[in-house]
Amino acid sequence: MSSSEPADGVPLPLSGATRVYAILGDPIGQVASPRLFNSAFRRRGAAAALVPIHVPPAELSVVVAAFRAAQNFDGLVITVPHKMEAMALVDEVAPMARRIGAVNVIRKSSGRLIGDNFDGVGFVRGLHDKGHQLSGRRTLIVGAGGAGRAVAHAVLDQKPAALRLFDVDKARAEALAAELAQVDAGVAIDVSPPDPSGFEIAVNCTSIGMKPNDPFPVNVDGLAAGMLVVDIILKPAVTPLLIEAERRGCVTQPGIHMLEGQVEAVCDFFRVGPLLC
Amino acid sequence: MSSSEPADGVPLPLSGATRVYAILGDPIGQVASPRLFNSAFRRRGAAAALVPIHVPPAELSVVVAAFRAAQNFDGLVITVPHKMEAMALVDEVAPMARRIGAVNVIRKSSGRLIGDNFDGVGFVRGLHDKGHQLSGRRTLIVGAGGAGRAVAHAVLDQKPAALRLFDVDKARAEALAAELAQVDAGVAIDVSPPDPSGFEIAVNCTSIGMKPNDPFPVNVDGLAAGMLVVDIILKPAVTPLLIEAERRGCVTQPGIHMLEGQVEAVCDFFRVGPLLC
Repeated sequence: MSSSEPADGVPLPLSGATRVYAILGDPIGQVASPRLFNSAFRRRGAAAALVPIHVPPAELSVVVAAFRAAQNFDGLVITVPHKMEAMALVDEVAPMARRIGAVNVIRKSSGRLIGDNFDGVGFVRGLHDKGHQLSGRRTLIVGAGGAGRAVAHAVLDQKPAALRLFDVDKARAEALAAELAQVDAGVAIDVSPPDPSGFEIAVNCTSIGMKPNDPFPVNVDGLAAGMLVVDIILKPAVTPLLIEAERRGCVTQPGIHMLEGQVEAVCDFFRVGPLLC
Repeated sequence: MSSSEPADGVPLPLSGATRVYAILGDPIGQVASPRLFNSAFRRRGAAAALVPIHVPPAELSVVVAAFRAAQNFDGLVITVPHKMEAMALVDEVAPMARRIGAVNVIRKSSGRLIGDNFDGVGFVRGLHDKGHQLSGRRTLIVGAGGAGRAVAHAVLDQKPAALRLFDVDKARAEALAAELAQVDAGVAIDVSPPDPSGFEIAVNCTSIGMKPNDPFPVNVDGLAAGMLVVDIILKPAVTPLLIEAERRGCVTQPGIHMLEGQVEAVCDFFRVGPLLC
């Protein structure tokens, strides 16, 4: 490692003038944002640092109040389980966050807290960065929870040829389908079992695959060579679904790229740059 | 700069497992703790980072409440103007902090907040580190505010031959003298004008010398070659008093050593080390 390329997760030297950011979550040890954002801040020449803050659900409002009160504390990344509750604590919710029903970032603007959601934007940018387009393609999204909602709304904006949703809670998938149809009636949307047959892209937005003996989240017999299979799970970095998909000749994309795709977009949202410091 | 010796103020790479510390002050841009503590954490191999938090006086309790609530937020350094108010927000005040009437550090112990004060200990350690002893020496301390109180109590514990106090607010100096006499009746203590004649050590604990046209805080005609003259002011790094004292053949010590002397003691108080991470 040369001195011009410090390890991932190292900010510029901290001083009294450093601007502060934090990620709030419970648990916190597994989050990748401190590693990714501190590297991004350093690349941008920003005298800023992002720290992890382990916040139990009952304490979220207390920590957001301190964020509001501290004058050099400029931005929050919000992760599990706080994304929905955090929406009630901001002064303004950006359109995409309102569609998703959750915020995953908060910044200050003239003392007001602005919440937005870049989970889906990060997903799309992570695919674009690897040369994968979503527009005009038939896409299966499995899971209609927080992550699935964010991904589905962002994919919808890319004008897919068709969108299929599945969730074990069928009512939840149907509610999401109805919301999506209200945003863009021009995309064919259905709720069906998680069979990728005839689709070009399949995305796992559930947590199925994190535990060793989990079943597959999609019907893998429907996978065909050339399909793009995406998993948003971060641990394991390569899930059993992706291993099986590769075995069947699919193109695969692990969860880390969704997060990486999000970092630059969020740094822009935070107005992170050397001119601000 | 080699990769094994990063710049001052650089912590180990941040991750979700990083333990968090902060310095609370208003203003905040001038504080040296982020530079000093992040270097100390790295030297100790601790996955920890200290960030500056700019907290207006009215918001101190909100930020301390968030500190209490966040499970990986382990310690606070408290600076101007919060040291006295912070004492009311902790669950337990250590003996030296109680004597001084102010806390400058807070740590958690089984969920309780413990406040202590290392300003005076840092002063003494900063002198010891440079080979200067306080015990058995006649010492003049100018200024009986927060810093003067901390220095006087710590110097008293070193058993000086005599202690002279001065403050423009004479009642404040007399009150401090009475408190010190209660702690140790064996040291001769008086309140008199700031004339170092006949003393071996003179310490400026006022802010006089920070502004370009300030007068000297002590009667410099009383300075003699060989006396030790200490200033606790950080900016300018070398005050007009120290320049004049050197011109008169005195030994001098600038304010930074008080802060450096404090860092290791506070890291011990915080239980900072690789085993905790």
